[in-house]
Amino acid sequence: MDPKTAPRTRLFVTADLNAGEVIELEDGQIHHLVNVLRLTDGAPIALFNGRDGEWLAEIERAGKRHYRARIGQPLRDQESGPDLWLLFAPIKRRPIDLIGEKATELGAALLWPVITGRTNVARVNLERLGKGVIEAAQQCGRLGVPELRPPAPLGEVIAAWPAGRRLLVLDESGTAPPIAEVLGNAPPRGGDAILIGPEGGFARSELDAMAKQAFVRRVGMGRRILRAETAAIAALACWQALIGDWRAAGPEKIGK
Amino acid sequence: MDPKTAPRTRLFVTADLNAGEVIELEDGQIHHLVNVLRLTDGAPIALFNGRDGEWLAEIERAGKRHYRARIGQPLRDQESGPDLWLLFAPIKRRPIDLIGEKATELGAALLWPVITGRTNVARVNLERLGKGVIEAAQQCGRLGVPELRPPAPLGEVIAAWPAGRRLLVLDESGTAPPIAEVLGNAPPRGGDAILIGPEGGFARSELDAMAKQAFVRRVGMGRRILRAETAAIAALACWQALIGDWRAAGPEKIGK
Repeated sequence: MDPKTAPRTRLFVTADLNAGEVIELEDGQIHHLVNVLRLTDGAPIALFNGRDGEWLAEIERAGKRHYRARIGQPLRDQESGPDLWLLFAPIKRRPIDLIGEKATELGAALLWPVITGRTNVARVNLERLGKGVIEAAQQCGRLGVPELRPPAPLGEVIAAWPAGRRLLVLDESGTAPPIAEVLGNAPPRGGDAILIGPEGGFARSELDAMAKQAFVRRVGMGRRILRAETAAIAALACWQALIGDWRAAGPEKIGK
Repeated sequence: MDPKTAPRTRLFVTADLNAGEVIELEDGQIHHLVNVLRLTDGAPIALFNGRDGEWLAEIERAGKRHYRARIGQPLRDQESGPDLWLLFAPIKRRPIDLIGEKATELGAALLWPVITGRTNVARVNLERLGKGVIEAAQQCGRLGVPELRPPAPLGEVIAAWPAGRRLLVLDESGTAPPIAEVLGNAPPRGGDAILIGPEGGFARSELDAMAKQAFVRRVGMGRRILRAETAAIAALACWQALIGDWRAAGPEKIGK
């Protein structure tokens, strides 16, 4: 089936997806399909779980408020997306919602709140963030949702940084080389990550400590002051345009 | 005065700015300065009007709810920013607010709602959009605010397109060349513009009609479905990174 004629309603599920099998739907999913979208028994939807590609399915009514999905034919093969992480200092609720939604649309593989010296937001509602990224993944056509990590202090994140992965740190001091220059022609073999600081920026000591790490590259994005969520969206977009999956034209598959 | 030690409170005004002169503040500005920020008589602020650069000023109490600003020394010279327009099909209120705020942070010179065949939002609240871009300009350090044009039908916009200005049309069909390829190494002499279509994209006939125009270049931004506001922010960021004022590192002036 041509993806363009595939059902527009896409549902992320955790169950394995195999032809002919039936999976139970959760209350929230049933509410969305039946009450919001007004889908009825037999309506076609598409399912994905981040592992098994995308499948055609039919809604099946099994009781008063009980619906299941009967899996039909495969629509798309699973494909891994770009190996790009987004680390960000926690900010207020609405900008965090925005980062979750937009980073998902822009193909980030992992979202990780990082506590810095000037971070003035104490906690992140990971459940809320998780719901937002699932909705965005369903809407934008991804075959998986970004992994969410619980918040961790910047020092610990840097100390346990995975070998081979680059860390692009947005540095607003005006002395960092421009992002287009730093990104280069391809992501490193070990993957890439973007780190966006808090309102008010990183402390000088944090920037100095990070600059000593071989995996860190400072990047600049001009001299206007960008809000944290703007910087995150902008950096992800530049990454996709320059070294990510926006470089290929034509109807290739949509990545995870 | 080093911009870093300049007052953090920046105010956009319409009056001319000359040393020693006094300008009246509007009720909304007074409310913001006095009630929200708790500034008092004599507090330093910075003023800009998009023509005369940025100036140090002092708040002067002139009556019970009457405040003025006494202009002091100049802080920064006026400088023109990138000649980049953003045209977008009107969408719902919140995404439009977001486009206004983020396009201002990302240095757009002009915002223009364009009515397309599939546009399903009837009107744009230009007053609300105008307030949003002024707030964003004050916050991000720009020396001017983007010009706002009233909504116009796509056909009329294309028919009266200014000579020499390029029009980059986001084409989600999957056949357009990648944005990084199309942008090239510098903006055209006549300036540049980005056009983002409505939810559901442009009609085939609209894309075909635009493709016939010599000033139009179709651009692709990958295969995930981007919301209109995500596409607008992403395209502006790519433009600034690749051919805009993010290419220069170092403490150059912030553009208009």
